[in-house]
Amino acid sequence: MTPSEPAETRTEDRPTRRSTAQTATLAEIAREAGVSAPTVSKVLNGRADVAPATRTRVEELLRAHGYRRRRAEATRSPLIDLVFHELESAWAMEVIRGVENVARDAGLSVVLSESAGRLTPGRTWADQVAARRPHGVVLVLSGLDESQRALLTSRSIPFVVMDPAGDPGADVPSIGATNWQGGLAATRHLVELGHRRIGAISGPPQMMCSRARIDGYRAALETAGLPVDSGLIKTGDFHHETGYRLGRELLARPDRPTAVFAGNDLQALGFYEAARELGLRIPQDVSVVGFDDLPVARWMGPPLTTVRQPLTEMAEAAARLVLELGRSQEAPTATRVELATSLVVRTSTAAPPTEGGLEAPVAES
Amino acid sequence: MTPSEPAETRTEDRPTRRSTAQTATLAEIAREAGVSAPTVSKVLNGRADVAPATRTRVEELLRAHGYRRRRAEATRSPLIDLVFHELESAWAMEVIRGVENVARDAGLSVVLSESAGRLTPGRTWADQVAARRPHGVVLVLSGLDESQRALLTSRSIPFVVMDPAGDPGADVPSIGATNWQGGLAATRHLVELGHRRIGAISGPPQMMCSRARIDGYRAALETAGLPVDSGLIKTGDFHHETGYRLGRELLARPDRPTAVFAGNDLQALGFYEAARELGLRIPQDVSVVGFDDLPVARWMGPPLTTVRQPLTEMAEAAARLVLELGRSQEAPTATRVELATSLVVRTSTAAPPTEGGLEAPVAES
Repeated sequence: MTPSEPAETRTEDRPTRRSTAQTATLAEIAREAGVSAPTVSKVLNGRADVAPATRTRVEELLRAHGYRRRRAEATRSPLIDLVFHELESAWAMEVIRGVENVARDAGLSVVLSESAGRLTPGRTWADQVAARRPHGVVLVLSGLDESQRALLTSRSIPFVVMDPAGDPGADVPSIGATNWQGGLAATRHLVELGHRRIGAISGPPQMMCSRARIDGYRAALETAGLPVDSGLIKTGDFHHETGYRLGRELLARPDRPTAVFAGNDLQALGFYEAARELGLRIPQDVSVVGFDDLPVARWMGPPLTTVRQPLTEMAEAAARLVLELGRSQEAPTATRVELATSLVVRTSTAAPPTEGGLEAPVAES
Repeated sequence: MTPSEPAETRTEDRPTRRSTAQTATLAEIAREAGVSAPTVSKVLNGRADVAPATRTRVEELLRAHGYRRRRAEATRSPLIDLVFHELESAWAMEVIRGVENVARDAGLSVVLSESAGRLTPGRTWADQVAARRPHGVVLVLSGLDESQRALLTSRSIPFVVMDPAGDPGADVPSIGATNWQGGLAATRHLVELGHRRIGAISGPPQMMCSRARIDGYRAALETAGLPVDSGLIKTGDFHHETGYRLGRELLARPDRPTAVFAGNDLQALGFYEAARELGLRIPQDVSVVGFDDLPVARWMGPPLTTVRQPLTEMAEAAARLVLELGRSQEAPTATRVELATSLVVRTSTAAPPTEGGLEAPVAES
């Protein structure tokens, strides 16, 4: 032990002092709940042999007192929890790989859960996490409700949100990517190629990343002095089918766009299919930019120009952050990290066809 | 409790009788190892406070005696372990989803590991599994070595291999797909379209699934009275890049095949790229069949004819089997289940171009 370590950390090696301090706090909660201290301890340890009503009462008091189990006392399992909104695409695989990398180096295993499409995992999930006591929880496009946060906080189980769907709250550490900047770069690239009618397919507006991408798209048009035509912005979920359906809608318009910024690579894949069915060639007849740079982007025909989001690195950063939070005795400071996105130019983008481009006047249609 | 339940199961409700029986066995091992029974118990529970030499000695004796912890005594964690050879593609996502489905219904969480490309997970992994005591282990395209099997068996942690890479041994329960039948169906489809020169891109020959697919391909050619030209069979790993590289080799031949059976969908994607670069159209100039039916297969341009492997269902079957084995007191019987594959015809296959097809005599080349 070096002298530079803070006093808080040093007490870890002194079980007697530590447990005395602990007992006092537990005892207070026990007294107020009208139960024994071991019962409070059972609740904290996720034991099943506590009556549900007692358990609820103790949990409420733990929350009301902002009880935080001291780190050293929690005998943690060598696990990291990773929770997905949905385990749908290759997107999730990139994230899993990042968390696995960090976990492996730290001698931990990864517990994977899916919140089955809901943006908040179920109640059972939080109980299970409290019982297994992992080193930390990484939530992907998910959030926790108030009681789940209190449950994890009372067990000193830190959590980090990766690419938060909603607004996670100022005190929740999160890792994202520069989505706005990515939307800007994608759209600027199309403007620089000469496109003037640029459509957009957006992800769900309740997800902050979708909003930021579309705002970047708007900013690129506005700073280029181009009008933003809301009829050219379509909104839906992040799946292939949606890219196909909204792509058909955009391409069926008499004044169809000469280029489209898709909200992610899967939507772009769907857009390819819509264009193919209508006999439109990419990029000769219509240009497309995606978002994410999943492996499939470079395998598409033609390979997709897209905004690379460093998903594996983001997941690594989230996992490292949650382990750091677990090592620190401090309450987590507000942390919001955004990793850089970058435009990867392949062959799905080119100058617009002359009929609909700069050269031909609009009056023609 | 019903009278039809076996006596073994009934003892679960009688802790006294059970623990007496257990103590005797533990005591024997302890005596032989020259340690106390609690020390043997510590080793069984994966506790760290046992000297390495002692631990090794006890493990060896546990193995030599074929010691099997009785199910009811193992306080299992509500976990299932899922181990991948590599977490590479959308393929893994289909499998994860299947195991998640079964785990969720059983109130269990999934612990994910990757054996980092090796076909056997590392030593640390087995120790971690023994320590966390999951309900069971599903290994995907991986196997266990002798000592890992002994370690899990001594803790009564059942395991099942999904789609075994090598020959898992007659006593290892496994779930696969009818790979041979799939290779046969894919190749027959091409023969029926009129193709006579059909190439193949195979996965690694050390994986049984690759061998079975190629044997099915051969069988289809032979039963159709067509020669098997070994120059038209290329072998490599299951990645996109390999499909591209071997596709280039096949298509560069002066007597290039008019159709190709790819070992999986990712190889087929690579083959698409090779064809595109050479200015060959699919299916007009060359037909392609894949294997797996990953989501991307129907999004490709043109959508890929492929052999559907029910990956999610296979993973569900593997997870259910491992939970069943855990419930049973019996030693696992040899179990090898193969789920059916089926050909999904899309638009990457058509009759061969007339120059190289049935109509034109071979003498022309």
